[in-house]
Amino acid sequence: MSIDAARTENQITDVTSSVNQLADRARRASRVLKRANRDWKDRALLAMAAGIDANRSKIFQENKKDLEAGRANGTSTAMLDRLKLDDQRIDGLIAALNELAGLPDPVGRVVRGETLPNGLRMRQVNVPMGVIGTIYEARPNVTVDIAGLSLKSGNAVLLRGGSAALNSNLALVSIIRDALESVSLPRDLVISIDEFGREGADAMMGARGKIDVLIPRGGRELIQRVVTTAKVPVIETGEGNVHIFLDADANEQMAIDILTNAKTQRPSVCNTVETLLIHKDSKVAASVLKALSAAGVTLHADERAAALVPELQTLAAGEDDWRNEYLDLDIAVKVVEDMDEALEHIRKYSTGHTEAILTSSLASSEQFIAEIDSAAVIVNASTRFTDGGQLGLGAEVGISTQKMHARGPMGLAELTTTKWIVQGDGHVRK
Amino acid sequence: MSIDAARTENQITDVTSSVNQLADRARRASRVLKRANRDWKDRALLAMAAGIDANRSKIFQENKKDLEAGRANGTSTAMLDRLKLDDQRIDGLIAALNELAGLPDPVGRVVRGETLPNGLRMRQVNVPMGVIGTIYEARPNVTVDIAGLSLKSGNAVLLRGGSAALNSNLALVSIIRDALESVSLPRDLVISIDEFGREGADAMMGARGKIDVLIPRGGRELIQRVVTTAKVPVIETGEGNVHIFLDADANEQMAIDILTNAKTQRPSVCNTVETLLIHKDSKVAASVLKALSAAGVTLHADERAAALVPELQTLAAGEDDWRNEYLDLDIAVKVVEDMDEALEHIRKYSTGHTEAILTSSLASSEQFIAEIDSAAVIVNASTRFTDGGQLGLGAEVGISTQKMHARGPMGLAELTTTKWIVQGDGHVRK
Repeated sequence: MSIDAARTENQITDVTSSVNQLADRARRASRVLKRANRDWKDRALLAMAAGIDANRSKIFQENKKDLEAGRANGTSTAMLDRLKLDDQRIDGLIAALNELAGLPDPVGRVVRGETLPNGLRMRQVNVPMGVIGTIYEARPNVTVDIAGLSLKSGNAVLLRGGSAALNSNLALVSIIRDALESVSLPRDLVISIDEFGREGADAMMGARGKIDVLIPRGGRELIQRVVTTAKVPVIETGEGNVHIFLDADANEQMAIDILTNAKTQRPSVCNTVETLLIHKDSKVAASVLKALSAAGVTLHADERAAALVPELQTLAAGEDDWRNEYLDLDIAVKVVEDMDEALEHIRKYSTGHTEAILTSSLASSEQFIAEIDSAAVIVNASTRFTDGGQLGLGAEVGISTQKMHARGPMGLAELTTTKWIVQGDGHVRK
Repeated sequence: MSIDAARTENQITDVTSSVNQLADRARRASRVLKRANRDWKDRALLAMAAGIDANRSKIFQENKKDLEAGRANGTSTAMLDRLKLDDQRIDGLIAALNELAGLPDPVGRVVRGETLPNGLRMRQVNVPMGVIGTIYEARPNVTVDIAGLSLKSGNAVLLRGGSAALNSNLALVSIIRDALESVSLPRDLVISIDEFGREGADAMMGARGKIDVLIPRGGRELIQRVVTTAKVPVIETGEGNVHIFLDADANEQMAIDILTNAKTQRPSVCNTVETLLIHKDSKVAASVLKALSAAGVTLHADERAAALVPELQTLAAGEDDWRNEYLDLDIAVKVVEDMDEALEHIRKYSTGHTEAILTSSLASSEQFIAEIDSAAVIVNASTRFTDGGQLGLGAEVGISTQKMHARGPMGLAELTTTKWIVQGDGHVRK
């Protein structure tokens, strides 16, 4: 082994043991939080909001360092925009924390309970997970967001943000920890491990028994790295290669309204539509495509779809168009023979997030609902409704695209687990 | 690369692609099962039971081959006993399948639903996972058990049993597949991958997107290998280093009855007690230890515990005794200063399965319930009640010791996921 390799290995061992120690500190802090009632936790959230409000200039100053470093590194404008904190974004963070304080406590809710025939009383109750780990990219708002959600759900959290947002994140974490202390909660409920860089993230992924669940937030590459590497359980969020199937008999105005909304209202998010599948007998397809084009959407069409609108400029669609999320004002369009071909296409390319059908046929609607295996199936409404806030879940942790633990929009309840409590009076098993 | 290494690598690639193909076949079969209502699934379970009943001699013949091979390999008597199928065990398998047919369908249940202020109707409904993978050891009864549970919950299953039970498992799988065909369900709902040996298990662990969840059933080593290796989500089951804390003021007869039941009723299972922590002020500790000893239990005691019963022979307890599951008529015993020391000991050594307190103090009971972070917390009753059947969940899939997805006894519902169904009438997001 070369000297360099040996040094790297030692460094990694150090990082692992440091991150494990921080996780232990977070665990001890989480035990204190277990004893905090909702009022106490809400006071902490309000203190965090007040602390952020009072320290705007410090936050902007640290954020400016990150932005300058980013510019010097040739970071893209889009990335710099995500990184930037201004008064409006700070207002948003404060509003989110205040809103969180207004939500019911997910901890302590009795999921089910009964007295068994032998008189044994049992109940299953929501309790905190314990220690959550988060790995995310260059959006400093996630720091505040996740700290607030973790606290309200009774969990301590270890944060590993993108190195591009290092100064902003450290400033926010320091303000949050001061706020915790101001209401007599342990500072170690929120711990940044940014100082350890990427090795810190790796150490969290290996910290079985130390970290209860990892929630990666970011692009495809980050999430794939975490789900395939982590030895700690992961909640997979995010990717949405979302389809809308325009059935033969869909209403014209409804189809135009929904497609336009699903594609253009906020094209950069995961519940935006990415592929439109058109039944070959649709009479309204041309109007829909013209409306999308008029709304500034670039059409990536297969031959049959392009032939529906010879007057429009379209790009030729290929395998990549079926597979990728544009997350922009682009949509892939394909004409299919029937529902079966639409279902087959979706099965092949869907990421299991959301699929919608626009139809006036009860049979089509029922078949689509039954056969689509995605977190959300939507009939005659915009795919933009796959969202915790829209579905009335309160604060949203993310959209889970996995089948374990949580599927679809996740609220605070999904950051808890349950405990069975069994009470007897000398009961033994026969 | 040596020729041998290259060959091994090719073999593994072949196994991976074979297992992936089998998982695809299982997926296609699971789509047919999605359309099967409860009556149809129950007919399949009854056909499986009837097939097993009608083929006892074939099963015994194949089981005999495994037993003979085991004896020739010097397999332990305990292992041979687990491997053996006799009329009584077959009766048990048949009874379990019939009972499963009598349980409600976990699929299609509406978890929650409401009409949102904008008129959008939404509901969250239990749906099958899709394809389950199971890796287990030399108990051929698991083959039937898991096939039945998977079918009832609407899932296809890939089975990898212990190689020691190869012939028994293949016979059972063949009978099960015939039964499926007899009620017009696809044979590929239940697929054995035993022919691929250990590489087959490895291939399942890597089959992200092909297998929805892996459920290992067996000893510590197997489960640890799966949870730390698998890239597919895993439900961790099993290990129970179960504690009972005898508080200062516990009732004597209750303590004797519960400890004896928790240790001797079935010592080989995960909810049996393994460590007894005694409050130093307990007046009944000596009686309890004498009762355990009289029931044939070997006491592994620390110095203070041994001093409570100088007339009994005890073994000196050490770190291993606190850490390991005996799964036999042995118990570790330690005297603690107070509740805090008991909690600290449990925090250090618990596997998060079940802990119980025997007390007449409300304050002790409340503190124990609040601070123990295990799947089940029991007050004044035997730890043997941590069991799906005992808690009224119907058939038991296993006891989950993880915090994600399912915690504690898992019933059929835990083999399902949910789907959000949103129905509108042209709704777009504002």
